[in-house]
Amino acid sequence: MNEYSLPIRVYIEDTDAGGIVFYANYLKYFERVRTELVRASGYQLRAGMEQNINYVVHSLDIRYIKPARLDDELVVHAKVVKISKTYFQVRQWATNAEAEVLVEGNVKVACVEFDTGKPRKMPAALVEALAE
Amino acid sequence: MNEYSLPIRVYIEDTDAGGIVFYANYLKYFERVRTELVRASGYQLRAGMEQNINYVVHSLDIRYIKPARLDDELVVHAKVVKISKTYFQVRQWATNAEAEVLVEGNVKVACVEFDTGKPRKMPAALVEALAE
Amino acid sequence: MNEYSLPIRVYIEDTDAGGIVFYANYLKYFERVRTELVRASGYQLRAGMEQNINYVVHSLDIRYIKPARLDDELVVHAKVVKISKTYFQVRQWATNAEAEVLVEGNVKVACVEFDTGKPRKMPAALVEALAE
Amino acid sequence: MNEYSLPIRVYIEDTDAGGIVFYANYLKYFERVRTELVRASGYQLRAGMEQNINYVVHSLDIRYIKPARLDDELVVHAKVVKISKTYFQVRQWATNAEAEVLVEGNVKVACVEFDTGKPRKMPAALVEALAE
Repeated sequence: MNEYSLPIRVYIEDTDAGGIVFYANYLKYFERVRTELVRASGYQLRAGMEQNINYVVHSLDIRYIKPARLDDELVVHAKVVKISKTYFQVRQWATNAEAEVLVEGNVKVACVEFDTGKPRKMPAALVEALAE
Repeated sequence: MNEYSLPIRVYIEDTDAGGIVFYANYLKYFERVRTELVRASGYQLRAGMEQNINYVVHSLDIRYIKPARLDDELVVHAKVVKISKTYFQVRQWATNAEAEVLVEGNVKVACVEFDTGKPRKMPAALVEALAE
Repeated sequence: MNEYSLPIRVYIEDTDAGGIVFYANYLKYFERVRTELVRASGYQLRAGMEQNINYVVHSLDIRYIKPARLDDELVVHAKVVKISKTYFQVRQWATNAEAEVLVEGNVKVACVEFDTGKPRKMPAALVEALAE
Repeated sequence: MNEYSLPIRVYIEDTDAGGIVFYANYLKYFERVRTELVRASGYQLRAGMEQNINYVVHSLDIRYIKPARLDDELVVHAKVVKISKTYFQVRQWATNAEAEVLVEGNVKVACVEFDTGKPRKMPAALVEALAE
């Protein structure tokens, strides 16, 4: 199934007073890569919103193995591991320049109606694209 | 004219690897206080959005005088200094526990149509409330 | 064991173009409450850093049940559920004004040396305070 | 003098419930570009910190001309306009795919001692590099 990876530089905005990337900010990195994975399949999040479709995170789990620091060059990865009628599951991880895994986790993304937030079927073309 | 102040604690999310509050995060603090100032006048931003009204920052200037650090207890202030037909101007500053001014600036907020982003007249009741 | 809860207002900085609180921002909320829980036990994170002690998240899992929106008044909770020599585990959740659970999860926080990032024993006084 | 520009994609993390990039987030974009400008001169912020040198924003002014939205591809620019003994001044702006200027401003960055926060002379090599 579909896989994507994105080089991401650690900027000062990403760090905290502990000198490392703040734990919430990996969720930003993960989201960027999922967005690019979907975009590479020919989709744009904003166009979906205009058709009353939104994608929201249903659940996730993360393990923080080794900290990243200012100026580090990470590669952040997303691999689709399951596609269902109303959601897809992505395995995600970040590696440093030595290819060590710093952070890894799983994110389940649900397709919902933009206005009501209720679950809805994923667009058929997205299901196909993610499966390729 | 209207004035408001809000105690704000510095959390790890607000700091950067330099050990101080990241410069962009004062804009978050400033926005929280402006929101509470408007709320205290009987308004809610979200209700405005549902009536196709949005408030966007038109311009600002800031001086960073002294850094704030993790665990610091700040008080952040907003004082309305000018009200026009389509915008209002706010003087904002943050003080520490010793009442020293750490950061100060001016923010001009424009009232716009939510969908088009075009300037529109501020609701009369907001103008009145801000002026009190 | 120790439990803490903190009222948190949703500001525009917390929301995204989907009109809801961005999923990473609950980790900021969770961290604020853990910090206050530790502070209420007589500890300050910054003082720890000055003694070469840092607390980093080891792992977490989260379920997003219902979205929060701009202006919502949440209460965010932290309850210590396990204390070990080098880490403690916290159950965390956010409720809305109707006391519905919007988000819930578990966060395992490890005590490490600030400079090397290596695990170290938690200060005895913190272990005691968390256990009360 | 030195000039740098960086393509920056707008992700969901950057937007707010108004559907546009949150005003504080342009300061993150601006900081990324300043960092790359300095890096292109052969400097790394983290290495500076290890030598007790930090760079902090002294003051800034910004005008928000047109909003950016989710999925937009911006180019963010930094141009050194003044170099002094203890600070440098940068003109910064963001353009969209049609080369329209969305946001523009000026940022004055001061060189300080990392531990005390006191102003210090900029490293001679950085002054040279910025001036080229």
